[in-house]
Amino acid sequence: MNNLKYYLGRVEQLFADECFLAEPRELYEPIDYTLRLGGKRIRPTLLLAANALFGGREEEVLGAALGIETFHNFTLLHDDLMDRSPLRRGQPTVYRKWDENTAVLSGDTMFALAWRYFLRQPSPRLRDILNCFNETAIEVCEGQQKDMNFERRGLGRVSLDDYLDMIRQKTAVLLAGALKVGALYAGAPEAQVDLLYAFGLHLGLAFQMQDDLLDGYGDTAVFGKKTGQDIRDNKISYLPLTALTLADEPQREELLSLFATKDTPDEEAKVRRVMALYDAVGLRPVVEQNIAREFQSARQTLDRIAADEALKAPLRELMETLDGRKK
Amino acid sequence: MNNLKYYLGRVEQLFADECFLAEPRELYEPIDYTLRLGGKRIRPTLLLAANALFGGREEEVLGAALGIETFHNFTLLHDDLMDRSPLRRGQPTVYRKWDENTAVLSGDTMFALAWRYFLRQPSPRLRDILNCFNETAIEVCEGQQKDMNFERRGLGRVSLDDYLDMIRQKTAVLLAGALKVGALYAGAPEAQVDLLYAFGLHLGLAFQMQDDLLDGYGDTAVFGKKTGQDIRDNKISYLPLTALTLADEPQREELLSLFATKDTPDEEAKVRRVMALYDAVGLRPVVEQNIAREFQSARQTLDRIAADEALKAPLRELMETLDGRKK
Repeated sequence: MNNLKYYLGRVEQLFADECFLAEPRELYEPIDYTLRLGGKRIRPTLLLAANALFGGREEEVLGAALGIETFHNFTLLHDDLMDRSPLRRGQPTVYRKWDENTAVLSGDTMFALAWRYFLRQPSPRLRDILNCFNETAIEVCEGQQKDMNFERRGLGRVSLDDYLDMIRQKTAVLLAGALKVGALYAGAPEAQVDLLYAFGLHLGLAFQMQDDLLDGYGDTAVFGKKTGQDIRDNKISYLPLTALTLADEPQREELLSLFATKDTPDEEAKVRRVMALYDAVGLRPVVEQNIAREFQSARQTLDRIAADEALKAPLRELMETLDGRKK
Repeated sequence: MNNLKYYLGRVEQLFADECFLAEPRELYEPIDYTLRLGGKRIRPTLLLAANALFGGREEEVLGAALGIETFHNFTLLHDDLMDRSPLRRGQPTVYRKWDENTAVLSGDTMFALAWRYFLRQPSPRLRDILNCFNETAIEVCEGQQKDMNFERRGLGRVSLDDYLDMIRQKTAVLLAGALKVGALYAGAPEAQVDLLYAFGLHLGLAFQMQDDLLDGYGDTAVFGKKTGQDIRDNKISYLPLTALTLADEPQREELLSLFATKDTPDEEAKVRRVMALYDAVGLRPVVEQNIAREFQSARQTLDRIAADEALKAPLRELMETLDGRKK
């Protein structure tokens, strides 16, 4: 029986062994750079563990594991371009290190490379597997568009439900899809595949809500980056949207006005003011409770899956790591 | 037996019947706009005709026909963004009509939609078909990167062979790939698939070389756009590269210097001067001969394909239309 550490190590090895460089260099160097920047590698880890859960053979899903992470990194590369983010995992983003055209084309190529990895391994369920991957990809694009629409609409015109629907598409379906692909390769029964997918959705929602929480309440020393960046960027996240549901009218108006201010002369004062409002409405415990509830739903869904408890252990371990994470 | 007109009409109908609009609108409206702009629809037409050549069933390749054209239009959408082209088929390009982020994300989604169409139809050879499509996609990206590299390198440092390799990847492999996919769906023997692929490469090279010729020597009234745009853009094409092989040293130096000039005050004088140089080196008949030779290779390859002559007729007709085209 493999534990979480085994799967994380296997995924690291997989990326270390793979060559991403080819001709023309101008196209592949940014791809190699992106895929070697690291990250948590959550999606391929979920895929391998889900496959093992139903007795799959690891060597049959290594292509899909590479593919799902390559796809994920493609979306980050294009998102960073669209969001004009200067840094990713502490390093310059591709459009900054190279240029915008490189970001567009190297990203496109990564999407195709993800397909190459997915197509590496035959399977009697290949069409189902590829459909799952592709419908996931489409949802991720739709989620990103909704996220961009929110920024244009402004905080006051986005509901918490809109937001949860957006992060489901932008983040959660890819975790769910990774699990489903792993299970499909193993020939898991449909009902089990569906439960695993549901587990992934809960896990993904909890993960993103916690990401939003850490941006406001992370311990800078552990978090590794400055907190409050979402506030500086007027980014619509789970925090201000939940705060609005708790605020009285004057608090609501102040929050909306703070999130509508661009180019504030004193950004740190703005961050402090928003955080004070969050505290005043009692935001933190409410958000922590909601995140805990989502993790609890994930846990209960995993409990219902008909598989060997020892094989579920790595998924449980990953979930508990994410639940307790400080960065 | 269907003729070319039948296939062109079938493809038009296919696009007319398809709904490209979905939520969020901001994502799908540019996709609908792009896919309804028209164009020659050469790739899906080749795919349908190649399928019929080996007794395939038309309804089985309609998804692939939609997919190959959706992919092609995705590459045009991203190319227009990267090349900063204001117009496509006489209409504003997506990044101009909307914005750059829309062009990035709607393009990404079109790539995924192309996959959705490709996955619509099961086939015992699905993995081969999808591999063919995907390896083609990767080559198209590599070709586009090489094209962008050329612009940076400058005319004097690109050889005719480099150029032919680039247009093979950027243009020819997609025509060849469309034919191959059609033939694979029909279960054609490998040797025939290879011949059809080779036919597509010759056709694609001839097509692009002629495109380059028309930019310089097209009849504006028929061509539908101003000639000489490649010269104004210092675009490295088959014309200046072939001219360099025919020029003496002073002519070579003048041509290189003209193609290195940016923001010329009198662009039309520059176009006239380059065209005069082309005439002086006797460019036009040489290029026309080379294009004719490439079409002849396509013709001879088609001749060698073991299929009913009546079924080859639409491919022949399409080839002769392209050979004689004035726009």
